[in-house]
Amino acid sequence: MGKNLLIVHGGGPTAVINASLYGAVMEAKASAEIGHVYGARGGTGGLMDEKLVDLGAMPDDELALLLQTPGSAIGSSRDALEEAEYQRIADVLQKYQIDYVLMNGGNGSMDTCGKIYHTCRDHGMDVLVCGIPKTMDNDLSVTDHSPGYGSAARYLAQSVKEVAADVHGLPIHVVVIEALGRNAGWVTAAAALAEDEDGLGPDLIYLPEVPFDDEKFLAAVSEKLKTKKGLVVVASEGLRYADGTPIVDPVMTVGRATYFGGVSEKLANLVIKHLGYKARSEKPGLLGRASMACVSPVDQEEAEIAGREAVRAVLAGETGKMVAFRRVSGAEEPYRAEPFLVPIEEVMMYEKTMPKEFIKEDGSGVTEAFKEYARPLIGGALPRMLRLE
Amino acid sequence: MGKNLLIVHGGGPTAVINASLYGAVMEAKASAEIGHVYGARGGTGGLMDEKLVDLGAMPDDELALLLQTPGSAIGSSRDALEEAEYQRIADVLQKYQIDYVLMNGGNGSMDTCGKIYHTCRDHGMDVLVCGIPKTMDNDLSVTDHSPGYGSAARYLAQSVKEVAADVHGLPIHVVVIEALGRNAGWVTAAAALAEDEDGLGPDLIYLPEVPFDDEKFLAAVSEKLKTKKGLVVVASEGLRYADGTPIVDPVMTVGRATYFGGVSEKLANLVIKHLGYKARSEKPGLLGRASMACVSPVDQEEAEIAGREAVRAVLAGETGKMVAFRRVSGAEEPYRAEPFLVPIEEVMMYEKTMPKEFIKEDGSGVTEAFKEYARPLIGGALPRMLRLE
Repeated sequence: MGKNLLIVHGGGPTAVINASLYGAVMEAKASAEIGHVYGARGGTGGLMDEKLVDLGAMPDDELALLLQTPGSAIGSSRDALEEAEYQRIADVLQKYQIDYVLMNGGNGSMDTCGKIYHTCRDHGMDVLVCGIPKTMDNDLSVTDHSPGYGSAARYLAQSVKEVAADVHGLPIHVVVIEALGRNAGWVTAAAALAEDEDGLGPDLIYLPEVPFDDEKFLAAVSEKLKTKKGLVVVASEGLRYADGTPIVDPVMTVGRATYFGGVSEKLANLVIKHLGYKARSEKPGLLGRASMACVSPVDQEEAEIAGREAVRAVLAGETGKMVAFRRVSGAEEPYRAEPFLVPIEEVMMYEKTMPKEFIKEDGSGVTEAFKEYARPLIGGALPRMLRLE
Repeated sequence: MGKNLLIVHGGGPTAVINASLYGAVMEAKASAEIGHVYGARGGTGGLMDEKLVDLGAMPDDELALLLQTPGSAIGSSRDALEEAEYQRIADVLQKYQIDYVLMNGGNGSMDTCGKIYHTCRDHGMDVLVCGIPKTMDNDLSVTDHSPGYGSAARYLAQSVKEVAADVHGLPIHVVVIEALGRNAGWVTAAAALAEDEDGLGPDLIYLPEVPFDDEKFLAAVSEKLKTKKGLVVVASEGLRYADGTPIVDPVMTVGRATYFGGVSEKLANLVIKHLGYKARSEKPGLLGRASMACVSPVDQEEAEIAGREAVRAVLAGETGKMVAFRRVSGAEEPYRAEPFLVPIEEVMMYEKTMPKEFIKEDGSGVTEAFKEYARPLIGGALPRMLRLE
């Protein structure tokens, strides 16, 4: 009788979270040492309710659909857990004779993962625990980047390019596109990759790491419109003023997550009201992490590798670790990255924002160093477009 | 010395407007009778300023980039023209010895097209004029459907499916997606195609043809949430109350175009405020007509055919016509459509909304008849997704 493995998803999904699930399940199914491969339906909440799905019993062709399914195919949850809930999780793990727990998520989920690890260790349970990195926000520390980011970055860059092509052909003056990422500007910054090849890219980029200023924004728009008839502005959903207050009120706060709305609408209305130019706003929102048509092949492959590596780690006796990636290619070489293990304590709840060298000194957008960092992650150049207008 | 052909774009672009341009230019280049193939840079406004680009002189591999470029590659304009401006256009046509004019656009542009035709005819000019249909809104009359619609429909259906997959895995209660189309619900309705195959589709659809009612909306959401944990609501950007007033104020009106904003945000806030459920809104906006990743192959092919047919029409001596499509396949046969010519007067400024047989009697969504109509236009089934949550 083999050992039983359980996979749990935490937090918001990405376009490739199910690729990690696929990798983990396929790796586990291929191992003679592993018996059941369970998924927790609905994250830790579902786990406490003993809602498990037997992934190992599913045929491979069904499992392959995971590679074209966004969202978390087994569900997820967002709640921070109380002490008693970790105890309940330990009880469920014992009841179902789970030997290996893989927790897939971002920094909040890695906190949960670390606490499950500590709970099992403190109870003397023979359960090995490993984290699978996942965040479209790219804000996990230690790792060079996180699965989910490359696809979110490709989605935004492609979308900005498409909107730029649309706007440049028309007498619309300003379009503001809102990007996901409340505190870290990694996704917003990826808009800069749109301008590769044909120059169809963003005119102004506003990162959450840089304090926003209404007057400076309006002055920048006015200045750009002196020489260009249509502007594309990309703004993080989490923009704040210098005093730390968001430039829009939060729509609602639920558990760890606060939903802000209308940053793009606010900026478009500023342009209309103060400058008198035509402006509109677009907020693709969840599509920024769910669009399968814009999945980065590099990202999808690494997501699958992350899932497989986590299985290999627990099979090798590792525990209390998270799979991370390090870039091993030199400056002039083609991109290569390899997985390694990092102690879970080093990533629990730590949020990695954009470093100074990736942001222009005056705060107006990103540096070439950032573009070099992000370009390989989106998995190939965007389709070149033709402009004759 | 051959005859000279001019192509002009009008109104908002689609994902395949440049496929029509490609078809027209390639067909014209292949004709020994045609000399110069010009494009007006920036629509009729650019034409009056004599801003022409010599498309016929461009290499084929450059022109092929048109098939992956959204927006209008030669620019466009939106303004309704005055009498004197038609005179100015006639002068420019004479100056550049234009023999054939192809005007690509929706019903506003077909009005312009018809007036250019009338002006040339009234002045005894030997200029043949033909319209190329284009509207993501699908609101041109006579034609079974218009190039641009199939891709916009595919984008929305795919996006709704992706958001549904995202939402069903999470404890978000309601997501409202805003669809383009102010007066006609064709694009909004296409959301219903998302549920094919795996049931991941919209829970509620609100068309602009059906008067909106806040109370009924809230009751429908409450009812659905009794049996389902996450809802996807799709709402047209042009929703109105029974008295005809938009449910949100217009952000701005410019020429023929009025920009409404925030229908999805308004509905999400209604849910939060009156029902106390978590809700968020997404407004992909221009991406709904600019996304190349979701282009319908059927739509793109028909767009190219429309461009080629317009060239063939003027070469055959036709004038004052628009290319249209009729469906020639029987009920149980694979989809087939063929182009034909319709007098331009029959389509000028006439807006085709959804017929009664495509809308459920109680107004709550679309009928099977609509789905049978729209399904072939999106060019193949959407990728199947896996749900285990």
